[in-house]
Amino acid sequence: MKPGKAGKAKKPARLKARTPRGFRDVEPDEIARVDWMLGAIKKVYHSYGFDPIETPFVEYTESLGKFLPDEDRPNQGVFSFQDDDDEWLSLRYDLTAPLARHVAENFDRLPKPHRSYRSGYVFRNEKPGPGRFRQFMQIDADTVGAASVAADAEICMMAADCMEAVGIKRGDYVIRVNNRKVLDGVMEAIGIGGPEHQRTRITVLRAIDKLDRLGLEGVRQLLGEGRKDESGDFTRGAGLSDEQIAGVSVFIEAGERGSLYEHLGAVAGKAETGRQGIAELRDIETLIEAAGYGDGRVVTDPSVVRGLEYYTGPVYEAELTFKVMDEKTGRPIRFGSVGGGGRYDGLVGRFRPESVPATGFSVGVSRLHAALKALEDGEAGTPQGPVVVTVMERNRMADYQKMAAELREAGIRAEVFLGNPKQFGKQLDYADRRGSPCAVIAGSDEFEKNIVQIKDLVIGKVAAAEIEDHQKWKAERPGQFEVPREGFVGAVKGVLGV
Amino acid sequence: MKPGKAGKAKKPARLKARTPRGFRDVEPDEIARVDWMLGAIKKVYHSYGFDPIETPFVEYTESLGKFLPDEDRPNQGVFSFQDDDDEWLSLRYDLTAPLARHVAENFDRLPKPHRSYRSGYVFRNEKPGPGRFRQFMQIDADTVGAASVAADAEICMMAADCMEAVGIKRGDYVIRVNNRKVLDGVMEAIGIGGPEHQRTRITVLRAIDKLDRLGLEGVRQLLGEGRKDESGDFTRGAGLSDEQIAGVSVFIEAGERGSLYEHLGAVAGKAETGRQGIAELRDIETLIEAAGYGDGRVVTDPSVVRGLEYYTGPVYEAELTFKVMDEKTGRPIRFGSVGGGGRYDGLVGRFRPESVPATGFSVGVSRLHAALKALEDGEAGTPQGPVVVTVMERNRMADYQKMAAELREAGIRAEVFLGNPKQFGKQLDYADRRGSPCAVIAGSDEFEKNIVQIKDLVIGKVAAAEIEDHQKWKAERPGQFEVPREGFVGAVKGVLGV
Repeated sequence: MKPGKAGKAKKPARLKARTPRGFRDVEPDEIARVDWMLGAIKKVYHSYGFDPIETPFVEYTESLGKFLPDEDRPNQGVFSFQDDDDEWLSLRYDLTAPLARHVAENFDRLPKPHRSYRSGYVFRNEKPGPGRFRQFMQIDADTVGAASVAADAEICMMAADCMEAVGIKRGDYVIRVNNRKVLDGVMEAIGIGGPEHQRTRITVLRAIDKLDRLGLEGVRQLLGEGRKDESGDFTRGAGLSDEQIAGVSVFIEAGERGSLYEHLGAVAGKAETGRQGIAELRDIETLIEAAGYGDGRVVTDPSVVRGLEYYTGPVYEAELTFKVMDEKTGRPIRFGSVGGGGRYDGLVGRFRPESVPATGFSVGVSRLHAALKALEDGEAGTPQGPVVVTVMERNRMADYQKMAAELREAGIRAEVFLGNPKQFGKQLDYADRRGSPCAVIAGSDEFEKNIVQIKDLVIGKVAAAEIEDHQKWKAERPGQFEVPREGFVGAVKGVLGV
Repeated sequence: MKPGKAGKAKKPARLKARTPRGFRDVEPDEIARVDWMLGAIKKVYHSYGFDPIETPFVEYTESLGKFLPDEDRPNQGVFSFQDDDDEWLSLRYDLTAPLARHVAENFDRLPKPHRSYRSGYVFRNEKPGPGRFRQFMQIDADTVGAASVAADAEICMMAADCMEAVGIKRGDYVIRVNNRKVLDGVMEAIGIGGPEHQRTRITVLRAIDKLDRLGLEGVRQLLGEGRKDESGDFTRGAGLSDEQIAGVSVFIEAGERGSLYEHLGAVAGKAETGRQGIAELRDIETLIEAAGYGDGRVVTDPSVVRGLEYYTGPVYEAELTFKVMDEKTGRPIRFGSVGGGGRYDGLVGRFRPESVPATGFSVGVSRLHAALKALEDGEAGTPQGPVVVTVMERNRMADYQKMAAELREAGIRAEVFLGNPKQFGKQLDYADRRGSPCAVIAGSDEFEKNIVQIKDLVIGKVAAAEIEDHQKWKAERPGQFEVPREGFVGAVKGVLGV
């Protein structure tokens, strides 16, 4: 090829800028609110004696296990890729499985019981939908090495404290507690106890977990032959008989306080596991009552089962009970579950010769954020825009930068306009779009007189709206005033009210 | 299969608990220090008018481009996997390429110039080594839409402010600035200018980037035929002639202030690009001087090139200049570069019809953390352990939890011992390992008398070391005293000195 031809670089085809399906960018106001939320929750965790521990985003696939709901094929639901040495790696799908690996790996040196917390993104290789993302954030707290249900009770109370720490009022949330052993007892009692019925039990579990969404009749269909949804798609059920379904239904409906244990005992009590589960539920209730959290903050509710397969004892769920009107549709929005967890006594033990009891709680940060935003109750607002030092004279850039630096030294957020300074109006438009409280203006006149102009953009906007005559507006220049260059930082402080 | 046989569940083979090669867990003291560091840096970015923006961990592979150093095969160096719809996805390898995609995607609605910052983990599919991980954290600030080198000067000064904000003293760091156009001018001048020499130029770039590690002679070898390292491995060089190598060497060695521009001009000035680069360097210097950062905080240094291919103009590097003695080896450790960046005018333009100027800076958080830890100058220490409420009477759990709750309400970090309470000594061992300031003790005697025992674990340890006689120690119980149950929170406060 001749140099002349090679000299004409082919312009590559233009790429389309887009996030992958199910992934999204996060904007400043959400970042500020989430930061504040995470800080408030971490403070609660810390006060209960929990320490932060972070695990990597990538784990050996085998370490994570196959515990995701609604999943039949291995590694379905997880993003996986093969390493140079042929080992399979996966992005973590929750923060619990990696913690189990961490504790097992460092078992001997860790003080036990081991209380820890962590927050971070987790990944699900699922079909994305509206509001349903493949990367989302959780913040978890776990106690490993405590067999006593006192650990579960503690986490339930801590979950209640977290809700209040982020500004959700008492009465606007509830922590619901149940015990998988009670459900196991029910399943034993109706004859689906042995390991040969494991698949059936998982199907039953996931059917009950959908109560919130499908109602009792929908769950009944999923316990039986199956259910056809609105779109006509058919989901195969657990294939239970009517009698078996009735047994499970009693369990789900046992929610009323007065007769709760009577109902539970009638079904689950027929099996030893069920009796043990009921006893544990009562123990938790006693601890909750004694600590004063029995006032509706933490309640027993047999319909809570949690979709994950690895839970072995108490399970719990944090639910928001208030409704907010959707501004667009005018319909009320219920936020429902914003977190949950339970006891997973088998998870650490997969790596250890001894069995290791563990229990933990996870907050779904995005859901909680959405609820707080709707409440407009988070303490973080949109952060204030910076003071903009405009550029009138291109060769005075160093002077403008010095002004911005002086403002910053006084603790005021400030920036020099760095775009093309030709059209001054565009600089003020920019300051407006940034939400700047005021602009600092200095041209050759001002430099000569050793003064600067300060334009109060908030007052200016109000005043401009009131003055109809454009000439009059130009003459008055509302919200704009001049001050000596020396004292300008104080004047800006005055505009900001600091 | 008979039910009896199915009933015997096969115990799965025990898994080995391990992090994948090149990935690691992060412990509480590092988390606390890094949080504090990030907070300090974000505060500086914010004060300059930068807003936070977060992008996802996963991007379309094509969006990221192939800009990693030392990489020949496509997607080498990056963790990639294929989506259901056959599109290739990758874990981000830095925070710059995703930002370019973000700005391009939201171009019309963003105020420009657009200043933003972000922090988070990035991933490199490289061979891990000691201290070299495949997941590490960066914190970046970028200005998009500002063609003026005032934007580059601002970022250099901001980088200096960041170093001081995390506790590195003036004189212990330096921000070095150069301009890729100067190097491009040199390369044009020695005859490797056209697109047909692109590979050669990248090899030259990466050779110079290794100056710090290999010294001038090593770089010269990489500019010529190649270099054999200590292990005998041979790296092919750029294949330049002796005359060409001499031209590049003048450029690298032009570092002395007095004759800097004279030397640069002699080589790079032969080409228009080179002259432009030199003019830009001078402009930056003027702005830096005017702002008072020319006191050694920000300096011009032609040996700075940065390994990434996408830089098009000014490049800069933050370097720590102090040395710390390694306690283990007794040898001094130099921390070197803890961050860098530059102008990447082509990166956003890959997605847009117009060209979009941009410049940015990235801090390597792990490196900076290691340096700060060595300095022992970060303000965050190891967080204090919680007060441990011990368990003497198993059926009094609710009372112990109430005590812990009262402490927390008074702002004191507290937890109930949740392990097996049988051996009391183990509870105190646990409190010791947690770094607890004191333990609260109440058995049947204490409940009867309505008192609690408080054991000051700090004083106790000192006193115990002084009392040799075990009997005497038992009698005196150093650091332990009893207080009424009602006033116990005040007494704990006394021990904590709060």
